[in-house]
Amino acid sequence: MSEPHDVSAVIEDLVAANRILAGLGVLDGFGHVSARHPAHPDRYLLSRSLAPALVTAADLMTFDLESNAVGGDQRKPYLERFIHGAIYGRRPEVMAVVHSHSPSVIPFAASSVPLRPLYHMASFISSAARVFEIRERFGTTDMLVRNAAQGGALAESLGCDAIVLMRGHGFCAVAESLPVVVFRAVYTETNAALQQHAIGLGGSVTYLDEGESLLSEKTNRGVVERPWTLWKERFAPRA
Amino acid sequence: MSEPHDVSAVIEDLVAANRILAGLGVLDGFGHVSARHPAHPDRYLLSRSLAPALVTAADLMTFDLESNAVGGDQRKPYLERFIHGAIYGRRPEVMAVVHSHSPSVIPFAASSVPLRPLYHMASFISSAARVFEIRERFGTTDMLVRNAAQGGALAESLGCDAIVLMRGHGFCAVAESLPVVVFRAVYTETNAALQQHAIGLGGSVTYLDEGESLLSEKTNRGVVERPWTLWKERFAPRA
Amino acid sequence: MSEPHDVSAVIEDLVAANRILAGLGVLDGFGHVSARHPAHPDRYLLSRSLAPALVTAADLMTFDLESNAVGGDQRKPYLERFIHGAIYGRRPEVMAVVHSHSPSVIPFAASSVPLRPLYHMASFISSAARVFEIRERFGTTDMLVRNAAQGGALAESLGCDAIVLMRGHGFCAVAESLPVVVFRAVYTETNAALQQHAIGLGGSVTYLDEGESLLSEKTNRGVVERPWTLWKERFAPRA
Amino acid sequence: MSEPHDVSAVIEDLVAANRILAGLGVLDGFGHVSARHPAHPDRYLLSRSLAPALVTAADLMTFDLESNAVGGDQRKPYLERFIHGAIYGRRPEVMAVVHSHSPSVIPFAASSVPLRPLYHMASFISSAARVFEIRERFGTTDMLVRNAAQGGALAESLGCDAIVLMRGHGFCAVAESLPVVVFRAVYTETNAALQQHAIGLGGSVTYLDEGESLLSEKTNRGVVERPWTLWKERFAPRA
Repeated sequence: MSEPHDVSAVIEDLVAANRILAGLGVLDGFGHVSARHPAHPDRYLLSRSLAPALVTAADLMTFDLESNAVGGDQRKPYLERFIHGAIYGRRPEVMAVVHSHSPSVIPFAASSVPLRPLYHMASFISSAARVFEIRERFGTTDMLVRNAAQGGALAESLGCDAIVLMRGHGFCAVAESLPVVVFRAVYTETNAALQQHAIGLGGSVTYLDEGESLLSEKTNRGVVERPWTLWKERFAPRA
Repeated sequence: MSEPHDVSAVIEDLVAANRILAGLGVLDGFGHVSARHPAHPDRYLLSRSLAPALVTAADLMTFDLESNAVGGDQRKPYLERFIHGAIYGRRPEVMAVVHSHSPSVIPFAASSVPLRPLYHMASFISSAARVFEIRERFGTTDMLVRNAAQGGALAESLGCDAIVLMRGHGFCAVAESLPVVVFRAVYTETNAALQQHAIGLGGSVTYLDEGESLLSEKTNRGVVERPWTLWKERFAPRA
Repeated sequence: MSEPHDVSAVIEDLVAANRILAGLGVLDGFGHVSARHPAHPDRYLLSRSLAPALVTAADLMTFDLESNAVGGDQRKPYLERFIHGAIYGRRPEVMAVVHSHSPSVIPFAASSVPLRPLYHMASFISSAARVFEIRERFGTTDMLVRNAAQGGALAESLGCDAIVLMRGHGFCAVAESLPVVVFRAVYTETNAALQQHAIGLGGSVTYLDEGESLLSEKTNRGVVERPWTLWKERFAPRA
Repeated sequence: MSEPHDVSAVIEDLVAANRILAGLGVLDGFGHVSARHPAHPDRYLLSRSLAPALVTAADLMTFDLESNAVGGDQRKPYLERFIHGAIYGRRPEVMAVVHSHSPSVIPFAASSVPLRPLYHMASFISSAARVFEIRERFGTTDMLVRNAAQGGALAESLGCDAIVLMRGHGFCAVAESLPVVVFRAVYTETNAALQQHAIGLGGSVTYLDEGESLLSEKTNRGVVERPWTLWKERFAPRA
């Protein structure tokens, strides 16, 4: 009758992820992070409409993959929860999703210059990050991903990648766990700033090649606990 | 005989707005934020000459639309209070005004490159923000808006827009409420930094088009409470 | 027999100036701020060799205009105290001097592009800030102003201006009081960052012209108390 | 039988160095700082695999110059400890090593534009900092320095310099003491940001020449205690 133990661990980590991403400036008043329900793969956990810095366990809602609230929860959800539902529906291995308006990334989402992996910490970025252009299929919109169709188109743009940029809007990161998705969201922001500066120097720039990225990505999985421990210590609410 | 209840709510929000804008770096020792008096549309509330980070309810003064202090208040006012009076006089729907020297915006106020909306959070910026050039009508000045004539010229430059830049000086944002004007001041600063970086990448840049801005602006009105709640929590004095 | 009262006021302000400039990042472990002795115009007050963030009244030393410690004070002085002595010797109206390695200013000190006043807060900067090139008269040095001759050459480069940049090193600001010199040091740094960004936009840039600067400078003198009050509140040690 | 007194001083300084470099943003969740053992020059002290902001004396391990843990210590070490062992093996005068992913430096490590000393604080940088390109000798890797051969190649790239950049990765700084190596790591980061900005101004840039660097470097050795005292005060754990 009681929830399995790992749900409470995921809830604790999801609250921590909200606070960490707000603390590091990857999320401000907007943006959100979710986790797939560990016991029900066709559901996901996401805060009610609230700034991530303020999220507590009591603010989490449960949604099905059509992004409808489960259990008659009447609280106001995020308008863009469809991002999460659509990705969990198409990527069974994904367990956590971040949507962010991270400041260094948005310029790349509006530019013809692609975001590329400048250093090993960002080796999860493909050789040129994809950009979701909502105009292509939906014409003039308010830029938000507001329904299942738009969520599906975004998920298609994401493909098998770890991140997708959104023109005039922000980006999404996905991963097999909350610590990894937080790592990716943070280092997407960092890499964008680094690449901006490297381009600004005016010389030629060498990016990681695909072989380097592949090997580095595997290595990073083994050390993700190190920043996660640090960030929880600094930003997560005390138990 | 007593003031209507919503005056005290506006006062509380105006103090919060001062602290928030200072806390987020949109105002430093200079700049100011005002609110139209909720019971007397021909008056507005604005701090005495004081750094916004230090403003309390007791520092607020009341001005008429000629920017004269009401009720014999002899305290030293801001030199540039005429910005506020002139805008309230010409824009009856405006209930709150910010004047700021926000760092990312000033470069655009001095450049031939116009500030434009790079992402949905800044969809209140018109397709190319107007710049008030005080030299045009007033020749050599100390750059301040020091009287009703200069205030009127600034308000004309603003026109029906949400913001106007001021060459060699800063910018103003206006809105129908304090939460919205704070939102606009913050995201004008953010958008300016983002556009700076997008231009620095050297490729072509895609801005929001007018249809996207219009729809996005409407959406943003519905979610402005989210950052406002966060910012009050972080920066407003405890009751 | 007792020191006149205004010495203790200057000491308090000089400690505050150290803390403010450190708190705002204009000084780091290095750099210094001095005040002319209010009772003895041929002497000045300056901390012993110590990071400005740590300076207290007990750390202040008194120097003559040859930058020798007065009263047999054997504590280790700053190597570059000659900057202060030389300027006080040549500019009788100057009552306070800052020497800083402020990060946005140093690029201008190394570049052929001159620092210019982009907005009214920095109207004390002449139409193109002068740069002291120590190589010209002294050849290969360790870049420091280590003696009276080098101090004199720096003071000559400064001329009648409010600031002088130092190639490969930093800058100096001077003023008729501590509040004004702190204002100038802070807004030199800010203006440098703003001008950097304005140039980065790639369009044409309009600077304050000389008439605007002159009028604005006069106005700023009247409002310098506002940021000074704020900064003391935030950074000065509690009495 | 007891350890000589200076070991405990080095341990205290090494913990301080970890906290300082984390506090100043030169290290984040990754990167590390080590010290050669003062009594056993063929050994060095380095934390177990842990974010530098969290390191305490109890987390330090001792390694030999092949980077094997001494005394059967079974705790998880940093993957890249070989950087430290290889440098201590080849540079007998080096007593401390930092490895960092410092944000302003990485763009130079990926660019054809060399990092050069823009101001006297960074006079330890040679006229053009060397870049270690791991591809040259090791082909496709995960970018890490994972073994003695890679450590040796990195140490060769370093040569007799104070720093070496690592393409797609970060940089290393070395010095004869912990205070000096922390100084160098901090001012490598600062100089990189300054040079970035100087280049961005678009004019010609004057760097320190070799004679100036040589003299300045000597001077800096004499004042390194000043920022070290400040940084310990701000960031080191209280005794």
